[in-house]
Amino acid sequence: MRDTYHNELDEITSQLVEMTRLVTSAMQRTSTALLDADLALAETVIEGDQIIDAVYHDIEKRSFELLAQQQPVASDLRIIVTSLRMVADLERAGDLALNLAKLARRRYPESAIPIELRPAILEMAQVAERIITKAGAVIATRDVEQARELESDDDVMDQLHRQLFTVMLADNWSHGVEAAVDIALAGRFFERFADHAVAVARRVIYLVTGEAVIVAE
Amino acid sequence: MRDTYHNELDEITSQLVEMTRLVTSAMQRTSTALLDADLALAETVIEGDQIIDAVYHDIEKRSFELLAQQQPVASDLRIIVTSLRMVADLERAGDLALNLAKLARRRYPESAIPIELRPAILEMAQVAERIITKAGAVIATRDVEQARELESDDDVMDQLHRQLFTVMLADNWSHGVEAAVDIALAGRFFERFADHAVAVARRVIYLVTGEAVIVAE
Repeated sequence: MRDTYHNELDEITSQLVEMTRLVTSAMQRTSTALLDADLALAETVIEGDQIIDAVYHDIEKRSFELLAQQQPVASDLRIIVTSLRMVADLERAGDLALNLAKLARRRYPESAIPIELRPAILEMAQVAERIITKAGAVIATRDVEQARELESDDDVMDQLHRQLFTVMLADNWSHGVEAAVDIALAGRFFERFADHAVAVARRVIYLVTGEAVIVAE
Repeated sequence: MRDTYHNELDEITSQLVEMTRLVTSAMQRTSTALLDADLALAETVIEGDQIIDAVYHDIEKRSFELLAQQQPVASDLRIIVTSLRMVADLERAGDLALNLAKLARRRYPESAIPIELRPAILEMAQVAERIITKAGAVIATRDVEQARELESDDDVMDQLHRQLFTVMLADNWSHGVEAAVDIALAGRFFERFADHAVAVARRVIYLVTGEAVIVAE
């Protein structure tokens, strides 16, 4: 039978999984809002960020309390400290979805995405959704093999990111400066979003294997 | 007389101050590299990021060891956990200086900054330098009043950031898409850099006052 302390640790992990679900949903909605110029959907992401932030602060608070009251050692300590890091990555990923939603809102009623970039942005959105979903699964299962998979998703994201620049900087770009600036920022937001999902996965690898992982770029 | 344990805590704080100094120097060099198209200087920032990352990993390692071996409580625990957060902010600020240096390198032998944006970018560079210098002082002194000052520096940065867009999106913008994309990204890097300095200051406020601070956007 598990004691209150370990139940509390499990509860933090569950909250992290729940937070990942909220961020995944934000990313799904923001991608649609961006591609379809759906203002109402963008607004749900903008308002919903407060909920993600509230979960963030709650996980932080619980982790601190556990650290202070239980003085955990070894693997338990590692779980709590790693959770504090993962929650920061997830909060930031939520902010990046928020940034995308604000971009969609700013360009409404137009779409911020010109027609020839829709396939690339759609693919970036799909990779973003896939990678954050996997990050959530990895938090729940601590499956190191799956955690390593996120690296190749991230490589795909980086390729798509570079592709945007190739299109925008080509001579036949006809959408002007404002659209290019929006796309450059949107590309950056997607790419950073994937980086945070990868950081979460790397932290899980560290948790399980103790393997030093380079989270810094 | 202080014991080994508290000496170790002080040592972590000193390393954080040293890391802030490295990041400040990177920001100074990258700003000059960007404005003067100085490739050699940009390269020093790009290579120097490894040193910042090494200090980051060293502070992390020491903090973990202290947590594990000493099982600190109350204020000592808060110092260590907060240090772990500050070091992540500083590492990220270093990456943003690195991104700016890469941008300068990509546009070499041209400057990435068109003439009419030089004053704004120069001012952003000055604010960035000032705010990170203050963040370092705040880590060393735990001066809450000074920590609060960083908020107004950050407001100035945000205004300058908006100003870039006003210039780029005006009808008389003559530098084309590539320059605009570079400026949009550079603006974002400066603005995020300042955000991380502010986050460091907010964490110091938390450390001293226990005041809940909103680090999340």
